[in-house]
Amino acid sequence: MAGFDDATMVRSTGDGCYDVELDPQWQIAGKLNGGYLLAVLGRAVLAEAGSADHPYPMAASAHYLHAPEPGPAEVTVRVLRAGRTAAQARATLHADGKPCVEALVTVGRLDGRVWWDGVPRVDLPPEESCFRLPVQGPGFEVPLMGVVAERMDPAVMGWAVGRASGRGELRGWVRLDDGREPDPLSLLMLVDALPPATFDLGTTGWVPTFELTCHVRAVPSPGPLAIRQRVRHVAGDRVDEECDVWDSTGRLVATGHQLAGLRIPDGQQPAAAGDG
Amino acid sequence: MAGFDDATMVRSTGDGCYDVELDPQWQIAGKLNGGYLLAVLGRAVLAEAGSADHPYPMAASAHYLHAPEPGPAEVTVRVLRAGRTAAQARATLHADGKPCVEALVTVGRLDGRVWWDGVPRVDLPPEESCFRLPVQGPGFEVPLMGVVAERMDPAVMGWAVGRASGRGELRGWVRLDDGREPDPLSLLMLVDALPPATFDLGTTGWVPTFELTCHVRAVPSPGPLAIRQRVRHVAGDRVDEECDVWDSTGRLVATGHQLAGLRIPDGQQPAAAGDG
Repeated sequence: MAGFDDATMVRSTGDGCYDVELDPQWQIAGKLNGGYLLAVLGRAVLAEAGSADHPYPMAASAHYLHAPEPGPAEVTVRVLRAGRTAAQARATLHADGKPCVEALVTVGRLDGRVWWDGVPRVDLPPEESCFRLPVQGPGFEVPLMGVVAERMDPAVMGWAVGRASGRGELRGWVRLDDGREPDPLSLLMLVDALPPATFDLGTTGWVPTFELTCHVRAVPSPGPLAIRQRVRHVAGDRVDEECDVWDSTGRLVATGHQLAGLRIPDGQQPAAAGDG
Repeated sequence: MAGFDDATMVRSTGDGCYDVELDPQWQIAGKLNGGYLLAVLGRAVLAEAGSADHPYPMAASAHYLHAPEPGPAEVTVRVLRAGRTAAQARATLHADGKPCVEALVTVGRLDGRVWWDGVPRVDLPPEESCFRLPVQGPGFEVPLMGVVAERMDPAVMGWAVGRASGRGELRGWVRLDDGREPDPLSLLMLVDALPPATFDLGTTGWVPTFELTCHVRAVPSPGPLAIRQRVRHVAGDRVDEECDVWDSTGRLVATGHQLAGLRIPDGQQPAAAGDG
């Protein structure tokens, strides 16, 4: 089993180009996880544009073009600006001759002193009372659950037995299974690691991400992360979701926002909420 | 006064390059508004990558590098993919020989049928009871308020008289002054058009945007838009804010998320909220 560091390793081949090996373990239902791909891009950006002044990703935005297969791929990084408080770069993942993901990444320092907080920490039962998500998902395999330990609040697991709450919220404790402690780079993956919160609306259809943005707010302390993934709005065949991540001290360390497609299997349509 | 369409006009010079004229009217305290710049990029992307299948911006993410001056500038667009349900492009604004803003934009159709809504519409008094923000801001000029009519709920205007509520929320009715009705492109600007919601925390310092993402969810109906800009979290010298936009029928039409710097003037520090 390749841990997070092995699975996101980048090898410079010069001129801002990096060889990567996309690891099949980071798949969900036969597709590599979008957050994992963003972390690979983030690592290449840090290799190219990172410095003592700009050690961490602060903001990363990815648009997804093609789903790459596991195996060899290439990341090209172009540094757009290196300023005093931040540097910005564009990174593109190519696989099989096609651009698959492009991201813009701003890197800089992180100062976690909280001045004002409008996002109170999610309330979770103790980790040992939570339910670890298995590799075998509802009708498909989720190899990702063999490398990321996601222990869910039993109160949000109704969807697994056909009794979704209808609130559109999943939450739980998350650790990397390789024992690696969380850092800012791994947060780019973790804002997209929970199952789609649409499961809690009673629909387990595929949710392919169009766009994912991660704002990293602090360097996480060691220990388990508390993560909440929430549906904001479902319209047409698209959903937008918000993901908040707190470290073991209760500090908000990252927020993710994504716009995704929503393929609703027959018989799983949520009740229409009206048109206005 | 140049209306929105004139101020965002793009003229193709071939090979994905567009000449633009950045309009001084869209400034706040001597800087062009970040949402306005994103709309200029979005318009160039639609000119290059838009089609009957892909008529609207769905998701747009901008990272800000340098603040351009008003005047001539150039946008280069590179189409990354043209698929069935979406096309993706990268757009870069250059001014004065420097890259100033780079954005990734996904374009496609919009289907506003609401299935599930976790973002209830903001409650506002009637438009005629609201307070139009003036061009003269607190210590600086906001020419933007001469082209975008922002009528704020009087309940969130305490900051203007030194009595911020501390809730970190601004809300109001918004129209374009040129009489143009809102469309998906203009929403890229409007998710960044309200004053920083940090004003409602008692600090009127400059809030330079690092990253702004807009998810467009529906084609807006004609009439005024209801907009709420909310602070999520202030840590170190950064803030993340969320902006929701509803059309005159009460439908959520766009959401913006941004990470920005926060320059706190002496004597305006919000009370520290503790460290964890």
